[in-house]
Amino acid sequence: MAELPIAPVKRIIKQAGAARISDDAAVALADAMEEFAEEIAIEATKYAKHAGRKTVTADDIKLAL
Amino acid sequence: MAELPIAPVKRIIKQAGAARISDDAAVALADAMEEFAEEIAIEATKYAKHAGRKTVTADDIKLAL
Repeated sequence: MAELPIAPVKRIIKQAGAARISDDAAVALADAMEEFAEEIAIEATKYAKHAGRKTVTADDIKLAL
Repeated sequence: MAELPIAPVKRIIKQAGAARISDDAAVALADAMEEFAEEIAIEATKYAKHAGRKTVTADDIKLAL
């Protein structure tokens, strides 16, 4: 966790129409984004290994999504 | 789109056990993370407005999740 910077997450919320965003709102969304990404990344890594590859590719990510 | 930096997304995939990650894999996951975040942010902004607030809070994000 805590890999993602908060500024771009705030921009995403702003683009969704928010007038203002509390810092802890951006942190909460960043945490959820990381959890989502971790689940996809674990699946994608399994698919790469299953295909006999060491490199996770965009196709692995798309399959995991 | 294209708000998130790619380096932290690569670190998340690495932490999931990947030996190597193609650049387009990290971009594909970053795009999916942004779409996920946009959906949550739109919901959370609606909840803040419904509650008569201009500021999106962590509670709005949690309700949207």
